Amino acid sequence: MPCGILTAMETELSRKLGVEHAIFGFTPFPAVAAAITRAGGFGVLGAVRYTAPDDLRRDLDWMQEHTDGKPYGLDVVMPAKKAVDGIGEADIEAMIPAAHRAFVRDTLAKHHVPELPEGEASGWRITGWMEQVARSQLDVAFDYPVKLLANALGSPPADVIARAHAHGVLVAALAGSAKHARRHAEAGIDIVVAQGYEAGGHTGDIATMVLVPEIVEAVAPLPVLAAGGIGSGEQIAAGLALGAQGAWLGSLWLTTTEADLHSRALTEKLLAAGSGDTVRSRALTGKPARQLRTEWTDAWDDPDGPGPLPMPLQGLLVAEAVSRIQKYEVQALLGTPVGQIVGRMNSERSVRAVFDELTAGFERAIDRVNRIAGRA
Amino acid sequence: MPCGILTAMETELSRKLGVEHAIFGFTPFPAVAAAITRAGGFGVLGAVRYTAPDDLRRDLDWMQEHTDGKPYGLDVVMPAKKAVDGIGEADIEAMIPAAHRAFVRDTLAKHHVPELPEGEASGWRITGWMEQVARSQLDVAFDYPVKLLANALGSPPADVIARAHAHGVLVAALAGSAKHARRHAEAGIDIVVAQGYEAGGHTGDIATMVLVPEIVEAVAPLPVLAAGGIGSGEQIAAGLALGAQGAWLGSLWLTTTEADLHSRALTEKLLAAGSGDTVRSRALTGKPARQLRTEWTDAWDDPDGPGPLPMPLQGLLVAEAVSRIQKYEVQALLGTPVGQIVGRMNSERSVRAVFDELTAGFERAIDRVNRIAGRA
Repeated sequence: MPCGILTAMETELSRKLGVEHAIFGFTPFPAVAAAITRAGGFGVLGAVRYTAPDDLRRDLDWMQEHTDGKPYGLDVVMPAKKAVDGIGEADIEAMIPAAHRAFVRDTLAKHHVPELPEGEASGWRITGWMEQVARSQLDVAFDYPVKLLANALGSPPADVIARAHAHGVLVAALAGSAKHARRHAEAGIDIVVAQGYEAGGHTGDIATMVLVPEIVEAVAPLPVLAAGGIGSGEQIAAGLALGAQGAWLGSLWLTTTEADLHSRALTEKLLAAGSGDTVRSRALTGKPARQLRTEWTDAWDDPDGPGPLPMPLQGLLVAEAVSRIQKYEVQALLGTPVGQIVGRMNSERSVRAVFDELTAGFERAIDRVNRIAGRA
Repeated sequence: MPCGILTAMETELSRKLGVEHAIFGFTPFPAVAAAITRAGGFGVLGAVRYTAPDDLRRDLDWMQEHTDGKPYGLDVVMPAKKAVDGIGEADIEAMIPAAHRAFVRDTLAKHHVPELPEGEASGWRITGWMEQVARSQLDVAFDYPVKLLANALGSPPADVIARAHAHGVLVAALAGSAKHARRHAEAGIDIVVAQGYEAGGHTGDIATMVLVPEIVEAVAPLPVLAAGGIGSGEQIAAGLALGAQGAWLGSLWLTTTEADLHSRALTEKLLAAGSGDTVRSRALTGKPARQLRTEWTDAWDDPDGPGPLPMPLQGLLVAEAVSRIQKYEVQALLGTPVGQIVGRMNSERSVRAVFDELTAGFERAIDRVNRIAGRA
């Protein structure tokens, strides 16, 4: 670093959260979330897979022990539409057309995907997406010093926001358009995560470069985090130049040594994939979500096939199939949500090593733009 | 500006070209290109519409008189595939299926689009896209002190690159993937324009945030320009943070007072459009190109329609239809290539005013990231 300047990446929001660097890391793995927090970032644990409150409690206990008193957050999923609220999984199952079930069976059979052993449940349950489960997660979360609550789909309900604020917890919500961001702001949230087209998971059509300044302007003075296409310090600098108060990174951690994808084959696929090997598809949940392109996504995106069902039906329809594909590591079908940044995820390293490279790259980018601006 | 620092945006490439700011403005309008150059940027005149060498000569004469001796460039189109080279327009016309011609007729009839007056040619001719025309454009171009020759599709032929270099002219080529960029570098070009998903015109699927650093790395030490989603100084700063040696802006100039779209209705449409009102469609040329979404693009992208033909057939098929739609300003069908940045093109201003806002926004972004990095 020139002039003996210490590495810094501080915004109003990072100071408010008591975090050293304005790097927010979203991950489903407690070990990764804790390591991001320990490295000086803000780890956000994705809670969608916790259907039993005790499992979440166990992992938050672990987080407490492994974050050295530093701040972290929790991401829950509460779809704004409550069409499925108050009705059981069986009622929703009944809405799935027989032709779609047959298409799943045929596609799995074509690829010789074995059945699950007797009594082994599918990993993904629709319940994780339902509001009552999200609320039971919240009951657990508020027992812990969680600093931020993020919501991946839609605005959180008013009472949840009020409850978070009463606990001194900030509320963040993801948005793929300025319109969504404005709706979040009106609902009373504290932070908008502007998630661009190139991001992994649920995403809209507007790219990060265009989306971030548009949302910054739409919700000012609320802080905005830049998400989508960010996997280097240079990209973090770009997101901050666009007006964000921090960067939100999800995909990058999937190939860290602390991540546990339960599939060597999937890790290898991620390490080998280029930026052009993802697709924004409704195959996974019924809403467009970026993921590795596979013969499974191709089958659902094929205009000659039945096409995906709307959320939450599609997620329920494919839950068991996805479990089987993952368990038996069926190469042609094996995928995961991931952004275009997968192209630079080419080695397995510790969260700490990845994090240090982010801050070093940020410094390089600042040096570079300062030289260009004649301020070196 | 803090500390009395003068506005600067200088890279190795901008110094090499003798341009004050590393802002490259692509436009089909000589008045816009000249104004960009006069403002301290690098105007690049798009030559695709010049089928007669004398027309190009007339406009380059005009450019010479209106650029105060400052540098500018020329963009020609030379598709790398020579499938249509050496055969006439009539031969290509014969390849168009009757069903596609009927679809054009029916779509125009549905929207009551009048015929062109007797003897009035369609504006767009396939010949502008053919290599022999591009070469006759080059014969003219090399008579002028053009500093840069850009090529929008594919790598220019080796002899063209050699001829440009013999005249001291740098050669740039657009790329939507690292693979394309590497091919350009191997062909001997001097500059890669990394054009992201959000850009107007022909574009790939990788967003600017991911594409620029990927191409910078792929072709180093060749200079790269960031294109796609750039319409503010903050976005230029982001592009430079990603490793680019300058920003390449095309859409932004379409609503400047110097631009002449020959259609008030189209200008109004651009001013009103949001970032979500474009689509990447093969409707215009047969290759995916971002443009305003209209009922015309919807018709071509409809899975129940015949779908677009490959380049160059689609361009030839729709040439007259596009002329009719433009001439009669048929609201529902009227479109133009433009990027997602159209969302911030909300007022008509002079090129100079737009340019000054770019440099001021760049300074603001540099101030901002320096504060975040603790270097204020």
